[in-house]
Amino acid sequence: MKLGRKDLLGLEGVSREEIELILNTAGTFKEVLQRKIPKVPTLRGKTAVNLFFEASTRTRISFELAEKRLSADSVSIAKTMSSAEKGETLLDTVRNLHAMKIDFLVVRHSASGAAHFLASRLEASVINAGDGAHEHPTQALLDLFTMRERLGGLEGLRVAIVGDVLHSRVARSNVFGLKTVGARVVLCAPRTFLPPGIEALGAEIECDVDKAIEGADVVMALRIQKERQDGGFLPSMREYAVLFGLNRKRAERLKPGCLVMHPGPINRGVEIDPDVADGPRSVILDQVTNGVAVRMAAIYLLSGGEVEHGVVD
Amino acid sequence: MKLGRKDLLGLEGVSREEIELILNTAGTFKEVLQRKIPKVPTLRGKTAVNLFFEASTRTRISFELAEKRLSADSVSIAKTMSSAEKGETLLDTVRNLHAMKIDFLVVRHSASGAAHFLASRLEASVINAGDGAHEHPTQALLDLFTMRERLGGLEGLRVAIVGDVLHSRVARSNVFGLKTVGARVVLCAPRTFLPPGIEALGAEIECDVDKAIEGADVVMALRIQKERQDGGFLPSMREYAVLFGLNRKRAERLKPGCLVMHPGPINRGVEIDPDVADGPRSVILDQVTNGVAVRMAAIYLLSGGEVEHGVVD
Amino acid sequence: MKLGRKDLLGLEGVSREEIELILNTAGTFKEVLQRKIPKVPTLRGKTAVNLFFEASTRTRISFELAEKRLSADSVSIAKTMSSAEKGETLLDTVRNLHAMKIDFLVVRHSASGAAHFLASRLEASVINAGDGAHEHPTQALLDLFTMRERLGGLEGLRVAIVGDVLHSRVARSNVFGLKTVGARVVLCAPRTFLPPGIEALGAEIECDVDKAIEGADVVMALRIQKERQDGGFLPSMREYAVLFGLNRKRAERLKPGCLVMHPGPINRGVEIDPDVADGPRSVILDQVTNGVAVRMAAIYLLSGGEVEHGVVD
Repeated sequence: MKLGRKDLLGLEGVSREEIELILNTAGTFKEVLQRKIPKVPTLRGKTAVNLFFEASTRTRISFELAEKRLSADSVSIAKTMSSAEKGETLLDTVRNLHAMKIDFLVVRHSASGAAHFLASRLEASVINAGDGAHEHPTQALLDLFTMRERLGGLEGLRVAIVGDVLHSRVARSNVFGLKTVGARVVLCAPRTFLPPGIEALGAEIECDVDKAIEGADVVMALRIQKERQDGGFLPSMREYAVLFGLNRKRAERLKPGCLVMHPGPINRGVEIDPDVADGPRSVILDQVTNGVAVRMAAIYLLSGGEVEHGVVD
Repeated sequence: MKLGRKDLLGLEGVSREEIELILNTAGTFKEVLQRKIPKVPTLRGKTAVNLFFEASTRTRISFELAEKRLSADSVSIAKTMSSAEKGETLLDTVRNLHAMKIDFLVVRHSASGAAHFLASRLEASVINAGDGAHEHPTQALLDLFTMRERLGGLEGLRVAIVGDVLHSRVARSNVFGLKTVGARVVLCAPRTFLPPGIEALGAEIECDVDKAIEGADVVMALRIQKERQDGGFLPSMREYAVLFGLNRKRAERLKPGCLVMHPGPINRGVEIDPDVADGPRSVILDQVTNGVAVRMAAIYLLSGGEVEHGVVD
Repeated sequence: MKLGRKDLLGLEGVSREEIELILNTAGTFKEVLQRKIPKVPTLRGKTAVNLFFEASTRTRISFELAEKRLSADSVSIAKTMSSAEKGETLLDTVRNLHAMKIDFLVVRHSASGAAHFLASRLEASVINAGDGAHEHPTQALLDLFTMRERLGGLEGLRVAIVGDVLHSRVARSNVFGLKTVGARVVLCAPRTFLPPGIEALGAEIECDVDKAIEGADVVMALRIQKERQDGGFLPSMREYAVLFGLNRKRAERLKPGCLVMHPGPINRGVEIDPDVADGPRSVILDQVTNGVAVRMAAIYLLSGGEVEHGVVD
């Protein structure tokens, strides 16, 4: 099977078959990563450029490792080193990269739609590594991979996503992906953190966190993005922690087998307590591990790679 | 044929035969770049360090890709990460790199002469990737390569270079290179943007842009370096655009087949209009594509590589 | 022989046999570095992450080159690009790297003990590339390697270390290493630059620089860390230079064959005069060259590599 796409810009409009193909391929790569030499020559001579207009450790390193383990050449550009400073337009920056014949562009940008804009103008495959408050598809795919690996399947799961839904591309991508594979999503946040019309995405809304997480198979705490709280959305971090934080008391009332997830980086003691983040229900580090395999799968499939009976060709 | 040089610091004093050798070798590498795996093992185990004391996306990435496609190990240092902050002299920084047995040093620095200074003190090959307002030889070589590829030859061409000649290492390197291969260069700029004595380089001066570009085979617009306009050289960007900008009206009066070039990054609407930058005469993205091949050729030849009958050895 | 350690955090507690194993292995790698292709496939498929919370050119590049010449995949993170800015704890940052299955973590951090803290919580091998004023073991090992190479042995050497001992992780690591191999260490500094209780490490203290360097086999000048002089430790740079600087007059009184060392970056004219830094006794650039070989040896041995009769397996 092949993925008939050039780009991975979001999970909106990605079919169940496509999601399953990516997750299955990621499973194969996860085995590759457990070998003594966790590397395949698949993309030798291909070039991936990681263009990060917003700071990131985790995501950039995860993509760099995925690219290197596929034997691609990997070049990273952080915002501060780019000629964005010289007033060049985003399109000109990327046209230039394109003229250098790159094969993959991984882009993170503060503007929603930045990745779509670039993808429609480039021959290279574009992977959206986060565009504003819009989408972050590989994050949601690694979340789905982790849920499926731990719980055996995705259909019918009840997933509670708690926190700053308004600013969260992670939440949006998860809603799209989870709905497509037949899971039920409950979004829980203070009213100021819920974008108007969010119900249209097909998620349920529940402003009481204790009700939201009751009976959930997965609880995903979102990061409070302190750097985006200028708008007076929150009275205080402390109040948020009390009213919405995933603390030990709440964790004890989760149903047996319920997974605790977080996309990182964690604000310990705000949206999640250290006890819970490091506790037995937490699969937060599994998410990180699976991220490399999922990104390898996405890059491999976008390059036109095929998978037969679960074997990477 | 071999290039009998350790360094590429500028095009001043580089002979016609040397320029042709580099351009021919770049032609061979351009074919390599069109292969399925656009990579050669030529410089396996060699180390290139890219030391950029001024910000750059395009040039740094172009060099990094050239190095990786020659299979060299490539390490990049941007100014802000360097111990330049700790007050170490430029020479000490580079002596240390040298003691680590690097083979190539690509250096960009705000001081004219920085690359020459280093080259005379190091065994490694030094490539000047821009030193102050002095030279930027690989940029001029990729410009020449692009002109030759599109127009069939360089001898007798009339090339108009329009803009901030005073601050432009690109203009200087082009004047040296173009004069050597027998082209005619017309420099056009506001008087404040023409360095005194510039005529001595052998270029003609024409302050009326409409006269300068009349009958030209190539028009190259230079970037207005906004960050260097503290000295009151320009009344305003808007006035510059009107008087010297390459706009649609001017482009329509260019002779058939005339090429439009720009070294990038572009200030759209200042020195060149979007219509013209993206129009049918523009070879701006060809310049970028050719940059990787030209830099591969330069690195290959400086390493002692030979070319026989157009075949890289 | 094998090194029975996962981590290299400091030279305190490292045995003479271990130090000799590392130095012998470094000797083998120094020969590798003189080959036409100075590279071995030993660590193909292994991943090293260089996590630098403090700026550095020399050390970061030295580690990057060591990793690349062992054929490991190498990823570097500078402080300013990391999500440390987002308030993530050091441990969370590293746990995430660990979840991505890295094999080596090279870490520089302003807090003493940072590397120990991480090493005890990670499966990956941790190499301390400098933690506050505590230790910088690979620097001391390259110093020992250089002394042994030039002077034929370490036992019984008299080594004078002059300068800002208080802030110097280099001095501490050298004291531990040199004492272990049987050398005599004299520390010389203004009183304000001597940590209380420093004598307990087994070094002699001598506040008169002329007495300290008299009869020494090695004089090591430490860098005055201008950025750490807020505390009023020094009346002025000029006074320090006069009272403690290694100037030509002092260098002339050194015993024949005495080596002059400096860990870099050098403040020329402060702790050492240019004449002396670049003079015939100076082995400062040898230190840099040997750094790559010593770091290759450390990484190789921490990975479980064996050495038999001086041959890397």
